[in-house]
Amino acid sequence: MNSPEALSRIRIVLSHTSHPGNIGAAARAMQTMGLRRLCLVSPQRFPHPDAHAMAAGSTQVLDHATLHDDLPHALAGAALVIGLTARPRQLSHALVTAREAAAQAVEIAATQEVALLFGTEMSGLSNAELDQCQLLAAITTDEEYSSLNLAAAVQVLAYELRMAAIGSVALEAAAFPLASHDEVDGFYSHLEETLVAIDFLDPAVPRRLMPRLRRLFSRARLEKEEVNILRGILKSIGLAQK
Amino acid sequence: MNSPEALSRIRIVLSHTSHPGNIGAAARAMQTMGLRRLCLVSPQRFPHPDAHAMAAGSTQVLDHATLHDDLPHALAGAALVIGLTARPRQLSHALVTAREAAAQAVEIAATQEVALLFGTEMSGLSNAELDQCQLLAAITTDEEYSSLNLAAAVQVLAYELRMAAIGSVALEAAAFPLASHDEVDGFYSHLEETLVAIDFLDPAVPRRLMPRLRRLFSRARLEKEEVNILRGILKSIGLAQK
Repeated sequence: MNSPEALSRIRIVLSHTSHPGNIGAAARAMQTMGLRRLCLVSPQRFPHPDAHAMAAGSTQVLDHATLHDDLPHALAGAALVIGLTARPRQLSHALVTAREAAAQAVEIAATQEVALLFGTEMSGLSNAELDQCQLLAAITTDEEYSSLNLAAAVQVLAYELRMAAIGSVALEAAAFPLASHDEVDGFYSHLEETLVAIDFLDPAVPRRLMPRLRRLFSRARLEKEEVNILRGILKSIGLAQK
Repeated sequence: MNSPEALSRIRIVLSHTSHPGNIGAAARAMQTMGLRRLCLVSPQRFPHPDAHAMAAGSTQVLDHATLHDDLPHALAGAALVIGLTARPRQLSHALVTAREAAAQAVEIAATQEVALLFGTEMSGLSNAELDQCQLLAAITTDEEYSSLNLAAAVQVLAYELRMAAIGSVALEAAAFPLASHDEVDGFYSHLEETLVAIDFLDPAVPRRLMPRLRRLFSRARLEKEEVNILRGILKSIGLAQK
């Protein structure tokens, strides 16, 4: 899927956040992933300088965060509300991984509004908040220590949402032209002659030396320029012998 | 694959970190994902109360963090070093997504040591640090604002490592053991001396020759046996000159 506009229909809702620094860090996490809509339900302290300090340059999300007195207002219009929880509960909600939740969120957000709801740093979502969710999601963690920082949890979810929306876009380093087949073959011949000349390779008993070296260099997929460098080295070895 | 023990062979290396709070938050991020080995290269301030404050209860990782004066010590024994970068670079290594990097890391970590290297908060990895990496990874982000907080980047990678180790399909271990970081470094030193001896490399005007050759061999991911062959060739070149 390649649907960046789906991200514009997904809001992050932080309920009763204690530390304003976490709000700023969450805003930064969202902005890095192209999420723009942050809703704050009765944060303990906000606005606050710590929030801006932790947001670093990502003021776009923080400055447009909306403040709400209660959860229903923050969730208004959402067709799907996904609650984040640290561990399985005995409640009746379906519990999925963050990856699966992101896939479902992006699918719905193709046409409708979606909200991801995060509870307080200390106790997570209250029962009343859980009742507002259609789906619960848990980030896969170590069994013994599952306590992600609030902003770190927002970062993981925001990242999974972007991966689900944009897909893994192929990243490629600046492409340098690869050497042609005959250029590489010319290098192998030159290499073989040189190895014979320096008495490393005995033509009578070649063993598997050349196939091993070919295997090494073919894994690297030689570029034109690299073949030139390598042949320059071989030439210098020949000259140094004379 | 279900190989939590692979995570025990993966270390996180933070180079020249400015803010001790980021070290603590990174330690917490690691602990939530079952990563235990944190290596700190010349942090500006550490130990520091901010580190412990941000680690919250996750002192297990923080208390066992190792301090190193230079990068090679922190990378000793690693068969694969993956550098985290914010954006594509020009003359560069193979660049993959965080997800792909995690898959490769877990694959190698089935049998050998792996290091993930993070640069400073402000400027990321230096060129000298990049030269130590076999692979570069970038977290998929918004194009306009790609600046993840350091601990947030560690959280995303640690999460992907856990998902790769616990969640995904079985991957085969490398057929032949890879050379360790120090073995490969020993080969590069030997290669450089030889290139100087045969007058191919002028130490006064080295240009980008050694980084280019490192880049070539990094792509191939040298095996132990291959390093032995290559060093045997270098030795024979030295003998042929005498």
